[in-house]
Amino acid sequence: MDFLSIADYAGTCAFAISGTLSASEKKLDLFGATFIGFVTAIGGGTIRDLLLGNTPVTWVVGIDYFILILSSIVFTFIFYKYIIKLKHTLFLFDTIGIGVFTIIGIEKALLFGINPPLAMVMGLSSAVVGGVIRDTLCNDVPLIFHKEIYATACIVGGVIYLLLSHFNINIYFSQTITILSIIIIRLLAINYNLSLPKITSAQE
Amino acid sequence: MDFLSIADYAGTCAFAISGTLSASEKKLDLFGATFIGFVTAIGGGTIRDLLLGNTPVTWVVGIDYFILILSSIVFTFIFYKYIIKLKHTLFLFDTIGIGVFTIIGIEKALLFGINPPLAMVMGLSSAVVGGVIRDTLCNDVPLIFHKEIYATACIVGGVIYLLLSHFNINIYFSQTITILSIIIIRLLAINYNLSLPKITSAQE
Amino acid sequence: MDFLSIADYAGTCAFAISGTLSASEKKLDLFGATFIGFVTAIGGGTIRDLLLGNTPVTWVVGIDYFILILSSIVFTFIFYKYIIKLKHTLFLFDTIGIGVFTIIGIEKALLFGINPPLAMVMGLSSAVVGGVIRDTLCNDVPLIFHKEIYATACIVGGVIYLLLSHFNINIYFSQTITILSIIIIRLLAINYNLSLPKITSAQE
Repeated sequence: MDFLSIADYAGTCAFAISGTLSASEKKLDLFGATFIGFVTAIGGGTIRDLLLGNTPVTWVVGIDYFILILSSIVFTFIFYKYIIKLKHTLFLFDTIGIGVFTIIGIEKALLFGINPPLAMVMGLSSAVVGGVIRDTLCNDVPLIFHKEIYATACIVGGVIYLLLSHFNINIYFSQTITILSIIIIRLLAINYNLSLPKITSAQE
Repeated sequence: MDFLSIADYAGTCAFAISGTLSASEKKLDLFGATFIGFVTAIGGGTIRDLLLGNTPVTWVVGIDYFILILSSIVFTFIFYKYIIKLKHTLFLFDTIGIGVFTIIGIEKALLFGINPPLAMVMGLSSAVVGGVIRDTLCNDVPLIFHKEIYATACIVGGVIYLLLSHFNINIYFSQTITILSIIIIRLLAINYNLSLPKITSAQE
Repeated sequence: MDFLSIADYAGTCAFAISGTLSASEKKLDLFGATFIGFVTAIGGGTIRDLLLGNTPVTWVVGIDYFILILSSIVFTFIFYKYIIKLKHTLFLFDTIGIGVFTIIGIEKALLFGINPPLAMVMGLSSAVVGGVIRDTLCNDVPLIFHKEIYATACIVGGVIYLLLSHFNINIYFSQTITILSIIIIRLLAINYNLSLPKITSAQE
């Protein structure tokens, strides 16, 4: 099993856990929390697969994602008190997750003969749409629309990945560089409290 | 025409009416109420069909659902004053609806060679996703995420159905038992005011 | 390049700009505004294509929509101060857009052998679903559910178009009449401050 698969599973777990935690903060019941955890984990990849067409939705054809996600959610229910203290670990998993999902989305789209800029969009939607659905269902404006350098990290990482692929750089090297870039950009952004400008303030 | 088809139509009507009523409480106009009524009725089945892939979306290929749903909505507009008094009848139809949609979703998924636990997910999304979309569009946190034993009734019913199918029990018998279980669980839950625990309170 | 294609591009730009403006009023950051602008422009057509099935999602197979939408969004960022003053121009573009999207949706659906009333639904969803997603993501109840004669204009236009097609009227003539009807209905509605009744008030 290669690094990308392991990181994919780790990212999926991180997304399921983060969805479940969000739902519990919103005082949803166990079903609501399970639903949100599930949708957060599979939402991005599902939208990507539906947009690509001619491909089954990844988590529907095998049972592995289902088991992994359900286990992560039950795990979160049981160890809730401890998990909410592990913010840094979760943050790291989540950041690895968006990096991996960006790469997987781009690769799958390129395999389908999609133009590189649109492959970038597919990578981005794999990475961020789960969180957008999570926040919309919890009746919030999606977090990534107004806080944090999150999608931007994916975009920069995606561009780096596309450039490296274009020059036929070794794929494992490209993947490592991409994920590291995404992690570093996000860590720097959090550390220096960076965020994107708003359109209105950018005019003043 | 078998029992399942009739119950499917009855459930579709109940969902269209419940969507229209929700929308009218939110002071939406006639178009808004029609839109919400429509989406509530077809939302769950649509998501199920898109996730399964390789199958047309049920209500798009024939005109029967469209006519049925539109009639239910217009009926609700005209007899609004009377319908809002028929809460018990509507509740019964709605409960039959989720029972039938759970079974239809599971059967369709099994037919596509989906794993039983994922077929369960497909059954559940047929039954509950319409309501989730309805509440999200009306700018509420979906009702089934924090109130009532609703999805839980579908899950228990779905597990019963899968077990009975596994042992090759007569299908009409299985269907009857499943729908009855879902109805009974929901009635008991309403009667004794049961609801699922929340993750946070479960920790205290 | 025929009139319909040009109007399609103009409508897409108008939708991208209106989405970006909505997002900036909500104080979203540049990524959030880009996301909303994009989804507003492609949302309706995407849902239509997914519902039809057996057809790729239009904006995914070519790069033209992507470039057009992204340019419109960047244009909005740069000329924000001027664009918000061009309300009438934008309104006109947007109205042309919904007219064109209604026709394109209906034509595509008829081509797939869909029943005329359902083709109408496909035309309508091409025209209005982008705005519904935009408002839902911005945490508002969709504007078209409670304000303005907007969807109604599309429905009347769509019925006119279907009738004219039924009698084999010249297609360019039918398209012109349809778009003009939609524009005129919407202008009249705005001018006389018309809106659809609500179901509750309709009972009093």
